Amino acid sequence: MSEVEVTAKRARGRPPVRSDADTRHLIADAAHAEFLARGFVGACVDDIAKSAGVSKKTLYRLIPTKAELFRASVTDRITRYMLATDEGSLGSHDVAAALERLLTEFGNLTLSADTIAIQRLAIAEADRFPELAASFYADAIQVTQAALAKFLAKQCARGALELDDPYAAAGMLRGMMIMEPQRSVMFGRGALLTPAEIADRARTCVRLFLGGCLKDRGKAIPGGVRTSTPEANPELRSGV
Amino acid sequence: MSEVEVTAKRARGRPPVRSDADTRHLIADAAHAEFLARGFVGACVDDIAKSAGVSKKTLYRLIPTKAELFRASVTDRITRYMLATDEGSLGSHDVAAALERLLTEFGNLTLSADTIAIQRLAIAEADRFPELAASFYADAIQVTQAALAKFLAKQCARGALELDDPYAAAGMLRGMMIMEPQRSVMFGRGALLTPAEIADRARTCVRLFLGGCLKDRGKAIPGGVRTSTPEANPELRSGV
Repeated sequence: MSEVEVTAKRARGRPPVRSDADTRHLIADAAHAEFLARGFVGACVDDIAKSAGVSKKTLYRLIPTKAELFRASVTDRITRYMLATDEGSLGSHDVAAALERLLTEFGNLTLSADTIAIQRLAIAEADRFPELAASFYADAIQVTQAALAKFLAKQCARGALELDDPYAAAGMLRGMMIMEPQRSVMFGRGALLTPAEIADRARTCVRLFLGGCLKDRGKAIPGGVRTSTPEANPELRSGV
Repeated sequence: MSEVEVTAKRARGRPPVRSDADTRHLIADAAHAEFLARGFVGACVDDIAKSAGVSKKTLYRLIPTKAELFRASVTDRITRYMLATDEGSLGSHDVAAALERLLTEFGNLTLSADTIAIQRLAIAEADRFPELAASFYADAIQVTQAALAKFLAKQCARGALELDDPYAAAGMLRGMMIMEPQRSVMFGRGALLTPAEIADRARTCVRLFLGGCLKDRGKAIPGGVRTSTPEANPELRSGV
């Protein structure tokens, strides 16, 4: 039964019943805030229940362990991101615009204060609690990586892009977009990027990823520029 | 007086005197191993002195604090990397080969078990000891980033590359090369890359960075392919 149906059915007489899925979201949000504020060891499950407005019994029924609370606080955000960047929502954009949209959303997700802090927590606790690092890697990093790889593979299949290994290329594109801005925040040396800066960076990364930065290849090789190995492209052999 | 002169002068009669610079290297190496084994809090300065084979007095004279020991253990490695990739050692390589060489060395440095572990330590301790994160960021990340940016700016000046912002592009290229392989180790989910895999990845990154992955641009725009914005390039508007 969907949330709407439940609400409609119970609208008269009894207070509306929240679905388990909705309660789970509330708990996941509260857990996220608690982990950010106190770390994994310091986080208090009672306080998470309180701040989510649910009983401890309900919390334990839906998410039985602290490690699963951590996992839920990560997957909840990833699911929202995946919905925002699924194929339907990319619509009929051309490949450059679609990639720009994907990278912008990816930047908004991964360059936020929250995500950087949760990732730092997972890295910092990787020795004591390897399950946190494992779940962040599987539920956040690999899921979003697989989605981008699938998109690139599809563009190769329809002849728009040429990549030997779309999975590896997806990881490279992600690294272009987020590594340095994420590190500068993680090391306490730089400010968060603004949404406009994230969008600009996405545009620059897509241009570089699609077109490269070698100058005047068109003139050097009128027939095509793809095989830009030193052997095939005299422009690449021109000396440092 | 250089190390060689000192050694030559003292060769007869007295045991050779080690220069302070050499003693510093020994201490930095010992500190590196100690930080990796025990973390920043657990590391014992006495043990570092012992394992370097120097007195505590000498250690404190050359490197007076634990934070400076950490810093020395990082800068020592960075200095070696900078020497291996300075312009002289790149010689007369063409731009693709020089970039490949730079990225391979950069991968060898940053994708080693040691560097990943030290970086994890700096991230994990960033709250308690912000000076560690600050020194890793300044001495390792920014120094190597500035060197790559300078190389790219030079290639732009001589007309080989076209980049609006060589500094930002350097960060993007670095992210392509190391983010995903570094993260998979940091999160305990992947093996270290072998030297051959690092070299392969450097080659792929350089091809992508220089040439992009858009297919058949040469045919679409016989005059040149650089301005690959959707407006300028009909191939980019072809729909997802």
